[in-house]
Amino acid sequence: MTENIYVVGHKSPDTDSVTSAIAYANLKAQLGVKEAVAAAAGNVNNETKFILDHFGLAAPMVLTDAAGKKVILVDHNEVGQAVDNVMQGDIVEVVDHHKIGDIQTGKPIFFHNEPVGATGTIIASLYEQNGVAIPKAMAGIMMSAILSDTVLFKSPTCTEKDKAAVSKLSQICGEDPMKFGMEMLKAKSDIKSKSALDILMGDFKKFDFSGTKAGVGQIEVMDLADLTPKRAAILDEMKKKADAEKLDMIVLMLTDVMKESSDLLFVGNAASAAGFEKAFGGKLANNSIYKEKCLSRKKQVIPPLESAFKK
Amino acid sequence: MTENIYVVGHKSPDTDSVTSAIAYANLKAQLGVKEAVAAAAGNVNNETKFILDHFGLAAPMVLTDAAGKKVILVDHNEVGQAVDNVMQGDIVEVVDHHKIGDIQTGKPIFFHNEPVGATGTIIASLYEQNGVAIPKAMAGIMMSAILSDTVLFKSPTCTEKDKAAVSKLSQICGEDPMKFGMEMLKAKSDIKSKSALDILMGDFKKFDFSGTKAGVGQIEVMDLADLTPKRAAILDEMKKKADAEKLDMIVLMLTDVMKESSDLLFVGNAASAAGFEKAFGGKLANNSIYKEKCLSRKKQVIPPLESAFKK
Repeated sequence: MTENIYVVGHKSPDTDSVTSAIAYANLKAQLGVKEAVAAAAGNVNNETKFILDHFGLAAPMVLTDAAGKKVILVDHNEVGQAVDNVMQGDIVEVVDHHKIGDIQTGKPIFFHNEPVGATGTIIASLYEQNGVAIPKAMAGIMMSAILSDTVLFKSPTCTEKDKAAVSKLSQICGEDPMKFGMEMLKAKSDIKSKSALDILMGDFKKFDFSGTKAGVGQIEVMDLADLTPKRAAILDEMKKKADAEKLDMIVLMLTDVMKESSDLLFVGNAASAAGFEKAFGGKLANNSIYKEKCLSRKKQVIPPLESAFKK
Repeated sequence: MTENIYVVGHKSPDTDSVTSAIAYANLKAQLGVKEAVAAAAGNVNNETKFILDHFGLAAPMVLTDAAGKKVILVDHNEVGQAVDNVMQGDIVEVVDHHKIGDIQTGKPIFFHNEPVGATGTIIASLYEQNGVAIPKAMAGIMMSAILSDTVLFKSPTCTEKDKAAVSKLSQICGEDPMKFGMEMLKAKSDIKSKSALDILMGDFKKFDFSGTKAGVGQIEVMDLADLTPKRAAILDEMKKKADAEKLDMIVLMLTDVMKESSDLLFVGNAASAAGFEKAFGGKLANNSIYKEKCLSRKKQVIPPLESAFKK
């Protein structure tokens, strides 16, 4: 029996991490690596479910522990964001678009990171570099991932390469990107059915800012007012999560996709609050700072936090 | 004035690290990044000098401190192997073929690592991916780097991709690879003029094996007997170096290219000696263990040391 190689994205999986796993496992299989298996580090969210259903694909298996397993990491390269015990597994490849983190290996591997809007953009170009035709469903989910991660090209992380990839992929899958993107966002921002904990954990990542342990989550909605009734319950879940995980602070970006702005909810100790206010040049009022033109955790929230806490 | 971006390889520069810096800076310039400047983290060795002279190129400028500078790292991705203060500089790209090390960044960058025999192979493919024609001299030095790092294809690190690259590059530069490779090796293994310290430091890298601080160097010769008269002096320099740099151990691979085997010289404390013997399944005799079919530090020396010292 051949040993599986699990292609897996980060915890609290978002669309890019799940679809990248599926599309990269497909590319590997087409290149003859039959043991590549797509996996997700948890259950898929509403947006991802909508996309997979639309293109006729099943959700990948859930992998939560990498101990003793061969894994290819997509859409992340930090131990804290990976499935449990990833360093007790065998990391054989990494394909990502984030800052370079703390993954180390004992031998040389394929590790490709590129500053583009989505891992989907990179994987689409890897099909091309390997001379492999992109199947229709794979084109559809990669297009969706790019539209999701770049918030329909509005995010400052979006590059010309992302737009060119969507243009090519939309021709293969036969969907109008902007029309499909709006449907996708509607599926994502249907928060009525979500609990406060679902909202907090939907896209939650842990970071270490010079010793300050932090969690930073994000939820995107079409209208911030939809979240107002759940605000108190969300703050309560943030406090519970910070206590349970011994985090110094938790930030949750409530992102209004239409206004391209975010209300940054904060809970944490006094030192963290000072760092948070320094990072965003404002005063906390009612547990939050509102930032205009702020869509990207990676480009507009993590870097100022890193600078503010730098010793 | 535009700020320079220094393309630079590892300390104790070898041919692949120097020529990769030159060839990648050339590619960047052809892509419109005029501020890319090739650099070397020290003076070039005899082999590299022979190659650069042959293809009519000057040795790059020497860069020893990256503080406050923009750098592209080629042929390494470990802080300990990089020019001083690399984390106080701004690492904007990494192109390498080693294990994944401890470089971290604050924002997403282009980071491409591939398990092939030489960084030169990767850079040749980056010319191709970017649709840029390879100039004759650049083809010559990249071909030389691949031949050098793979010891004329004999090293277990050598892949089909390396061989295909040499085949393509040799057509562009007009040199017969095997004939030129032998001339290159002769230039490299001219050790009569070298001091014991030159021999130790010619290709010396530092590693951390689960807390055991180590230096591992390598010298390749056509005939091990050439080194016999200098053995005592070399061991003496190894002891001095270990003391001066507070290293627990130093290993120096005396590699016989013709016999494809290495005499592994060792100095270090008792715990390290036990780990060294465990790693190579032998007993130290006269400060060394002789290993047949052992050419590659990366594939045949570092991994067993990492396993032996793993806690």
